[in-house]
Amino acid sequence: MTAFDEATAVTPEGEGWYATRPDERFAIVSGDGTVGAVNGGVLLATVLRAVLDTSPHPDPVATSAHFLRVPRPQQARVQVTWLKQGKTAATARAALMQDGCCVLDTTITTGTLGAADGGLSWTGEPPVLPPVEECTGFADFAGATRRTGYTGQVDLRLDPATAGWLRGRPQGVPEMRGYFQLREERRPDAYLLALAVDALPPVIFGIARAGWSPTVELTWHMRAAPAPGLLRLAARSRHVSGGWFDEESEVWDAAGRLVAQSRQIARVGRGRGGPAA
Amino acid sequence: MTAFDEATAVTPEGEGWYATRPDERFAIVSGDGTVGAVNGGVLLATVLRAVLDTSPHPDPVATSAHFLRVPRPQQARVQVTWLKQGKTAATARAALMQDGCCVLDTTITTGTLGAADGGLSWTGEPPVLPPVEECTGFADFAGATRRTGYTGQVDLRLDPATAGWLRGRPQGVPEMRGYFQLREERRPDAYLLALAVDALPPVIFGIARAGWSPTVELTWHMRAAPAPGLLRLAARSRHVSGGWFDEESEVWDAAGRLVAQSRQIARVGRGRGGPAA
Repeated sequence: MTAFDEATAVTPEGEGWYATRPDERFAIVSGDGTVGAVNGGVLLATVLRAVLDTSPHPDPVATSAHFLRVPRPQQARVQVTWLKQGKTAATARAALMQDGCCVLDTTITTGTLGAADGGLSWTGEPPVLPPVEECTGFADFAGATRRTGYTGQVDLRLDPATAGWLRGRPQGVPEMRGYFQLREERRPDAYLLALAVDALPPVIFGIARAGWSPTVELTWHMRAAPAPGLLRLAARSRHVSGGWFDEESEVWDAAGRLVAQSRQIARVGRGRGGPAA
Repeated sequence: MTAFDEATAVTPEGEGWYATRPDERFAIVSGDGTVGAVNGGVLLATVLRAVLDTSPHPDPVATSAHFLRVPRPQQARVQVTWLKQGKTAATARAALMQDGCCVLDTTITTGTLGAADGGLSWTGEPPVLPPVEECTGFADFAGATRRTGYTGQVDLRLDPATAGWLRGRPQGVPEMRGYFQLREERRPDAYLLALAVDALPPVIFGIARAGWSPTVELTWHMRAAPAPGLLRLAARSRHVSGGWFDEESEVWDAAGRLVAQSRQIARVGRGRGGPAA
């Protein structure tokens, strides 16, 4: 069992309630060793486990999530409430609660991917990445002190074209691309996709040296079961303004299929200076 | 007061409940006069009115919506439950209910656009549309019999490059572009943006003659208060597969600013034949 599976485990307590615990192994750790918030994707995967436990359909077709509070690495509960259980789709509300407050509010619609109308098929251009050997190991570059928490669990290799910010030279466009897998060997599935859709550094690092960018809302769609192997991630922003930015990402699997999409709205982080050049 | 404002009106009943009524003036009417579902954007605007009634912040920064059942044009209620009311953001769950069942489930985070960090600003390329005089009046083309319900309320002018499907010749790419306003004079605001983000015909009409495409989930982000005048809409899909497709749209105002973004996941409609060509 991987650290990721342990960190996202839920224990049924009956009547739609599940016990869990946000895991500091997936927290963001600052250069000075300060343990920050647990990665949002890990929380999404946790809530998803609780929902799929009683879902009549296997695939999380649409997950929308509003991040309300910063979770602490201590006891938490997930409450699952089914709003509809239909023949082709089912919808549940699921909330991650701590001390009686909602930390993360989600609505998840499940269905069966690839079951209906085989007829119509069309896919846009895939992202272009250099071979993984030419990409920048994020945690390695950031230095040994950063190889704890989230960056110690995730093997993220950035496309050098979107890694200039690591050397203080943002490329001038809010885009990020890279390869993604866990450091532990684990086959990609819906839970890992929930982590992958927000695994890249904030796209605004491509235009400015900003601080941590808290996600306010993120919606992701699963489009197919991923093949084994490295996932390719590509993210961009369309509009950065007034302290807010959107980030839309795609996850492509090793077989070259678009397996997940997300869009989030986030706040521009503070505390590390303004726009670069 | 416009038909749109009447159709989206809510009456407070206390304790977070509001009375409303899905309005057949915004229903999709088939060529044979059959009245179908009320437009989803009108329902989004209705629920938004109920949430903004008690919101501490003015702008619906993030709205995620799961469409569970087809609403009928009769009495309905909206229930608003606040999950958090913070200094910079507040989040409510709001459900449109009919006969004790949830028709539309939403979570809405409100905030103040343009209030924070003026520093960082970046916007992608705007969509390119021909002058409105060269665009195709959707309802006019569809014929006088169709000028009832939704198409009778909305003045949608399609870019000829994405209007080939009206003559049975889809352009081969899942894209739609056009100008949008109500037929009645009304200044754009957050409520009209909720209608605009899903006002274009389904993008898959660009690749196939499909039937009505039910939206399963739609999330939209308001990015700025729109200037008076025509709105420009641009939508595309990235992936159509296994009976599902995504559709992402942008709304630009008459002043050339990106004012709203959305992405939805929908089912490929049935009943009007398979892929074109």
